[in-house]
Amino acid sequence: MARAENVPAAAVQRLSLYLRQLDFFQAHNRRTISSRQLGDPLGISDAQVRKDLAHFGQFGQAGVGYRVSELGPRLRQILGTDKTAPVVLVGFGNLGRALGAYHGFDKRGFEVAAVFDADPKKVGQSVPGIESARIRPMSDLPKVVAERDVRLGILAVPATAAQAAAETMVAAGIRGILNFAPVTLHVDADVAVASVDLAVQLEQLSFQIAGQA
Amino acid sequence: MARAENVPAAAVQRLSLYLRQLDFFQAHNRRTISSRQLGDPLGISDAQVRKDLAHFGQFGQAGVGYRVSELGPRLRQILGTDKTAPVVLVGFGNLGRALGAYHGFDKRGFEVAAVFDADPKKVGQSVPGIESARIRPMSDLPKVVAERDVRLGILAVPATAAQAAAETMVAAGIRGILNFAPVTLHVDADVAVASVDLAVQLEQLSFQIAGQA
Repeated sequence: MARAENVPAAAVQRLSLYLRQLDFFQAHNRRTISSRQLGDPLGISDAQVRKDLAHFGQFGQAGVGYRVSELGPRLRQILGTDKTAPVVLVGFGNLGRALGAYHGFDKRGFEVAAVFDADPKKVGQSVPGIESARIRPMSDLPKVVAERDVRLGILAVPATAAQAAAETMVAAGIRGILNFAPVTLHVDADVAVASVDLAVQLEQLSFQIAGQA
Repeated sequence: MARAENVPAAAVQRLSLYLRQLDFFQAHNRRTISSRQLGDPLGISDAQVRKDLAHFGQFGQAGVGYRVSELGPRLRQILGTDKTAPVVLVGFGNLGRALGAYHGFDKRGFEVAAVFDADPKKVGQSVPGIESARIRPMSDLPKVVAERDVRLGILAVPATAAQAAAETMVAAGIRGILNFAPVTLHVDADVAVASVDLAVQLEQLSFQIAGQA
């Protein structure tokens, strides 16, 4: 299998979309699909589908296409989501609350294993959507990460608290952070960070439609 | 000013980050900054900062740098966020609820003007965080979009309902959609779509850290 660093990030991003589409086909009892059938609903060409998948090995069969029931699990394996991965959620404001209750994560192989907040008033409160979970203090983070072997964390704290919280997460053993705080995090190069700044996304749309009548 | 189509998307994305950083400097009473000082906290080189800004005109002054109080408003103008832009929110589940109450939007020039949901049980309910707002039926969308001259919409409905909701939004006059549903939307080419699939983001992190000890 290709090592992570040799594959273009855009190809890995599309891998997630292929998997999402395969899950859809699986749910609709499709058995085999061509690269065109896989790419079309995503607006991706069949040549691009074949090129992307070729980074990771040989898939499919000439004249038959890909077996939905085989390609999905293979992609999950490549993405590292073939087993359910525990995730910690740090920050339980409006956004953290929504992320904790978000059903989209479980379907894709992620489980919010524990929720943390620095606010003593929130600690001990129950977490809607996560059975039997209580909000834990930040000081519990290292223990939980070690016990559950957690590698991924979601950061949903205010901008001013984000860098310190990220450092606490990394020190506890977190290797990948999905950051919702509107700041650029500075962490070791071997820690993966993906940032989702919701206002930035709207700004980009605003720019794209600016000047339209 | 450069037209939208001639500027690399990555440069426009960085424009949002420069603006975010300028707001920070402004809040900390910094008057002038160099391209290095602007780029450093973002992990962007000074040469890249200069190159990105050059797409949009002449900024700053040799030996002085950029005036924070001037560059910020100029960038807002370019992004089309110099006046508060009304935004409709479609879908009021867990994620929609969080997005409606998200304070990050107002600071960046967006105002959630109205909230819509297809569920008759939700229609008429109040919206936490948005004073005097009630959830409205989808059938009100065209009227609200026309009255308030809304161009941007946030889509936070389940995957199965997303395409139909997007079509309703576009028919009502929405030109840019921030899509949180885990599907690829098919809309006219002149409608801008930005998609945020939270599970895909986690998957990408999972891939990046896969194979680490």
